[in-house]
Amino acid sequence: MPSTIEFWFDFSSPYGYVASQLIGDVAARHGRAVNWHPILLGPVFKAVGTAPLAGLPIKGDYSKHDFARTARYHEIPFRLPENFPVGTQVAARAFYLIADGDADRARDFASRVFGAYFAEGRDVADPAVVLQLAAAAGADSAALAGPLKGDAIKERVRAEVENAMKAGVFGSPHFIVDGEPFWGVDRIPQMEEWMRTGGW
Amino acid sequence: MPSTIEFWFDFSSPYGYVASQLIGDVAARHGRAVNWHPILLGPVFKAVGTAPLAGLPIKGDYSKHDFARTARYHEIPFRLPENFPVGTQVAARAFYLIADGDADRARDFASRVFGAYFAEGRDVADPAVVLQLAAAAGADSAALAGPLKGDAIKERVRAEVENAMKAGVFGSPHFIVDGEPFWGVDRIPQMEEWMRTGGW
Repeated sequence: MPSTIEFWFDFSSPYGYVASQLIGDVAARHGRAVNWHPILLGPVFKAVGTAPLAGLPIKGDYSKHDFARTARYHEIPFRLPENFPVGTQVAARAFYLIADGDADRARDFASRVFGAYFAEGRDVADPAVVLQLAAAAGADSAALAGPLKGDAIKERVRAEVENAMKAGVFGSPHFIVDGEPFWGVDRIPQMEEWMRTGGW
Repeated sequence: MPSTIEFWFDFSSPYGYVASQLIGDVAARHGRAVNWHPILLGPVFKAVGTAPLAGLPIKGDYSKHDFARTARYHEIPFRLPENFPVGTQVAARAFYLIADGDADRARDFASRVFGAYFAEGRDVADPAVVLQLAAAAGADSAALAGPLKGDAIKERVRAEVENAMKAGVFGSPHFIVDGEPFWGVDRIPQMEEWMRTGGW
């Protein structure tokens, strides 16, 4: 059986959002499944010594322009949220709580978080919004509310970020397929060619 | 008449090299000419607050892997030189000295510098190598040798780097066409779509 596409992203990453809209079709074209892994770029950037693109002089302005242009290029609705970037710990915690019961539901939840933030400008750092989106994805939001505040899930997300870094992940989106890493939504064509040819 | 494609690069940039191999065909497909502008990324990175990719922890190793893979993807010969990165002041100075007489010859010279460095692993920081490549492009290398050491051409290259930064350039390759900036060899598909549609 062909291996899955491992897909890491931060819910506050515009290119991660664009990738989340494309990856389903990409995987289907190559008969692959996708494992979604929300992570937190804060600790990752600290380890790598990089900074969020949008805050850099000169490059930051270009990046904001490129976020929107790249979304338009792929015909994906996009509006840079007023509160950008935003903390995504709560959304990541909710994702893993949901995923432990139902991976498909967690993917649906993740898509809703991305859409709420980048298409509708909602505050996905707000636990109430996160629980609403979980409910919309069919999760039992009342049952989620307690564990979402607990230490266990915080530790779990920390471990997921650690594992991502151990796998060499340093950005969003970041893919690994058949052991080969691809960073950036602009590497999807290379990733597709890799799956088509088995490497080149 | 459609506007030219402005193309900035550093001779030590692997993605700049890949772009230099692709841009001629890209421009021809859209009936455009290309203005080549070698710059020095050192002062640019200082202004933007970024660092050379290849030296970063984790990201650096991936980048080296991606340089080679991206070249293979485009079927371009590539071998990361042992002395990487390398100072490209002398090559840039020679380029502008040649370009003042003959822009086509300067482009030919630039292609030879890129090929000497990234396909053959030659030391393009060495003025003797630079003069050899200039001669191979048909320039009068004996007449170049003096001006290449002069203050005037140093000042000229400084001014070219300044102008690039004023135009918003912060990387290599960096393109501007019809006023629209595109950073990275992976933005060539968007640049082509932009020229095809007149923006979207």
